[in-house]
Amino acid sequence: MTGFSADRRTFLAGAAAGAAFLRPGAALAQSGQLESIRAAVVAGHDEAVGRLQDWIRNPTIAAEKLNVDGGADYMMGLAREAGFQKVQKVSTAGAPGVFATLNAGAKRWLGIYFMYDVKQFDAAEWAHPPLEARLVDRPGTGQVIVGRGAVNQKGPQTAFLAALLAIRAAGRKLPVNLVLVAEGEEEIGSPHFPQIVQRPDVLATLKKCQGVIIPSAGQGPNGAASISLGAKGVIELELIASGEKWGRGPVRDVHSSLKAQIDSPVWHLVQALNTLVAADGNTPAIEGWFEKVRPLTLRERALVAEGARNRVEADSKRALGVQRWIDDAPWLESLERLTSQPTVNIQGLVAGHTGPGGKTVLPSRATAKLDFRLVPNMTVEDSLTKLKAHLAKRGFGDIDITMSGGYDPTETSEDSRVVRAQQAVFTRAGIPFTLSPRSPGSWPGFVFTGAPLGIPAGQFGLGTGAGAHAPNEYFVIESLSPAVAGLDAVTMGYVDFLYEMASIK
Amino acid sequence: MTGFSADRRTFLAGAAAGAAFLRPGAALAQSGQLESIRAAVVAGHDEAVGRLQDWIRNPTIAAEKLNVDGGADYMMGLAREAGFQKVQKVSTAGAPGVFATLNAGAKRWLGIYFMYDVKQFDAAEWAHPPLEARLVDRPGTGQVIVGRGAVNQKGPQTAFLAALLAIRAAGRKLPVNLVLVAEGEEEIGSPHFPQIVQRPDVLATLKKCQGVIIPSAGQGPNGAASISLGAKGVIELELIASGEKWGRGPVRDVHSSLKAQIDSPVWHLVQALNTLVAADGNTPAIEGWFEKVRPLTLRERALVAEGARNRVEADSKRALGVQRWIDDAPWLESLERLTSQPTVNIQGLVAGHTGPGGKTVLPSRATAKLDFRLVPNMTVEDSLTKLKAHLAKRGFGDIDITMSGGYDPTETSEDSRVVRAQQAVFTRAGIPFTLSPRSPGSWPGFVFTGAPLGIPAGQFGLGTGAGAHAPNEYFVIESLSPAVAGLDAVTMGYVDFLYEMASIK
Repeated sequence: MTGFSADRRTFLAGAAAGAAFLRPGAALAQSGQLESIRAAVVAGHDEAVGRLQDWIRNPTIAAEKLNVDGGADYMMGLAREAGFQKVQKVSTAGAPGVFATLNAGAKRWLGIYFMYDVKQFDAAEWAHPPLEARLVDRPGTGQVIVGRGAVNQKGPQTAFLAALLAIRAAGRKLPVNLVLVAEGEEEIGSPHFPQIVQRPDVLATLKKCQGVIIPSAGQGPNGAASISLGAKGVIELELIASGEKWGRGPVRDVHSSLKAQIDSPVWHLVQALNTLVAADGNTPAIEGWFEKVRPLTLRERALVAEGARNRVEADSKRALGVQRWIDDAPWLESLERLTSQPTVNIQGLVAGHTGPGGKTVLPSRATAKLDFRLVPNMTVEDSLTKLKAHLAKRGFGDIDITMSGGYDPTETSEDSRVVRAQQAVFTRAGIPFTLSPRSPGSWPGFVFTGAPLGIPAGQFGLGTGAGAHAPNEYFVIESLSPAVAGLDAVTMGYVDFLYEMASIK
Repeated sequence: MTGFSADRRTFLAGAAAGAAFLRPGAALAQSGQLESIRAAVVAGHDEAVGRLQDWIRNPTIAAEKLNVDGGADYMMGLAREAGFQKVQKVSTAGAPGVFATLNAGAKRWLGIYFMYDVKQFDAAEWAHPPLEARLVDRPGTGQVIVGRGAVNQKGPQTAFLAALLAIRAAGRKLPVNLVLVAEGEEEIGSPHFPQIVQRPDVLATLKKCQGVIIPSAGQGPNGAASISLGAKGVIELELIASGEKWGRGPVRDVHSSLKAQIDSPVWHLVQALNTLVAADGNTPAIEGWFEKVRPLTLRERALVAEGARNRVEADSKRALGVQRWIDDAPWLESLERLTSQPTVNIQGLVAGHTGPGGKTVLPSRATAKLDFRLVPNMTVEDSLTKLKAHLAKRGFGDIDITMSGGYDPTETSEDSRVVRAQQAVFTRAGIPFTLSPRSPGSWPGFVFTGAPLGIPAGQFGLGTGAGAHAPNEYFVIESLSPAVAGLDAVTMGYVDFLYEMASIK
């Protein structure tokens, strides 16, 4: 707590700017429960921090098959501790997931989606060990926890659990009943999550819900928030060219001098890749790729424009380490593209000699790791079919396409209760926010918003952090800025949201 | 020696097929020295094997900066042991080399080129540890030494040293004087070897030479040999695309969802690469690349045709793990291309996430490792200039070109004494051979054949092995086939060659 105890005491006293986040919603204020819950949140602070640290120290990494089953057990323990009465492991054709219910005898049900896996990391790139979950003073930001998964998504999820614990510690019942569905394969594209949600008993329980949220750190570094009304879909796959499958080139690496006599699977892959984007290096050139792409509506364009006005382009460029957007597009146009355009991205290339210096080989195999972001009304199935046909038609039918995961785009109406409740909480907390028609990233919301369930779903939460999928990921515990929520204010945000969901018209 | 002692005794007695390789040249027979040298070679066998094993166990790997200086010291020790009177380390702007002379008071001088570095290896791909230099019984082949550098070039070089030692052990003087020039950077393209050769005292001594040979295992698995009248040149380099240099895309990896807004250095590299070869994936498409390419002469075509007749296409395909040559070319045409065509080969690709599974990053940097083989009258300097101009003209001027090494093509006349002496030795040993106009691989012979030295230079030696630059590299010590020379016969081949060089008209 070094350097932050004073702030916390101030926060506790409700006398400083930081306390702004404790302004309750009408439902919460009228319940007469505000003060006792607030006290319970503050009293539970250290325990919540310790819980987050311990969770970070026990990572599940699906891509490396690390702690997949253990991560589910850990999640079940957290759910039980937070008061879920029924907690089950749900087996699938792949990794298991978790299904839990907390029936508080309330009128309404709310769905909660958790992911307990994290992205891979290279510890050498980190300033602090990624699995130590150190509390660090970050200049200009405040006290943060540094660690893989801190912001994506263990920090926000821990705050949500802290909200449940605080309500119970204050001797109160939850104002809504909860259904928790959790998986440990989000970072590889949730290949088995649909199986979890579509188990009949899980599906039946979810059908009772007003909607689903995934706890998320929704504030930017300046405090402004964005509520996403959807997210792009994604396909992650590898394209693998090999002499063996091609029937040309060598089946094992040979000396590079033989290139004058022998075909190269690496050139074959490079030429295949080159057909996937236009000369600008950006626009997907896969045949029929734009067939189902739905242009932005007038409302969506207005929302993007509002978002552009509420963010500072220079800050965004600096944060991303970028001097120019594609095609030197101006700020608004770059954001419209970010929202509306499908992408073909190369995550990684691996062929032949990858160590230092050269090695005179003609490699027998080359791999490209790709991700494709999909916008409505594209689907994974249709897109994959088009990619296969595109490659086959151009003489690359031998190239193996190994899909590791993916899901369709997701959309939720701004009129839904979960979206309106989010706006109410942000408004009361004095947090400026915009509605974003679509997040450029992906999460498996389609499992909820698509058939057969068809309920609203979105990410929600106060607080901030950075470094998802990158080195030095962090989540803010104590915020120096009064405009940005620290852990306790994030927790109170979830408390307010639960009461709002219980009472909103 | 398990399993081979009997063969060695037979060999010693000169009564078996293996002994065919001891048939002396006229000069050697007339010298009256044959029997005593032959006995010394056989007596020195175990020592020579031990010397080769110890050398393999002390690798120099220039690409990894491993034991570069120590390798020079080791080489100097070998030269002194073999009777060189003056042995010097030659410093350069980079790694040092070795210059040694053995003045036997003979009429003629012969140059010897050694490389004491070896290619990198991945021990996990080997059946036997690559640095243990184990003696292994290879079914159908005989006793071999398995290890990195066994055939390229420590085995043949050890046999050459054994020849010098045997002549001395027999109480004889060498029939020719020797100049040894050696380097430890051959596998990275000999970036500093010209500096070694062009040191005034080295150059003056080499100018006295009839020519230069690099000891080499010249026999194929069936015993047939090929004498190369030259070799292609080579350029090894990396093309590196980065957001930093480009001024587009990110300067550090960012989340892959941003692809709709941010350029990708990986796509930039893929598109640059794609301009380097034609649609066939083989023919170089760099502007002006064929400007200086000299077509094969009638004599060269005849030599390639003879080589094609003397080799079995199916054996070659099987050995290389290849079903088809480029463009489905027939055998002869594929060999003509191998001899006559320049190449652009991708040795390796490295970008973004290279580990298992996917990782949703938009990488800030991508690297392609390339080698270009050059044929007469292409030069490194001119080719590099053309590559740079080609990329710049097509919008890829930002891509860094980092050349690690390279050298011009080399050519030697078939009328030179070193080439005629080789033919005489092969003929006497009963080894079928062909003249090859040009090796598709590269060695820095241009340092000798080009200006300012201009003397003949070529690879020479009996014996066989395989796996250069690949796993399980080996050199045959005891041959099951009477058509293929084992270590002692290879050694006697060098003895014969030295006497032939002393007497040939």
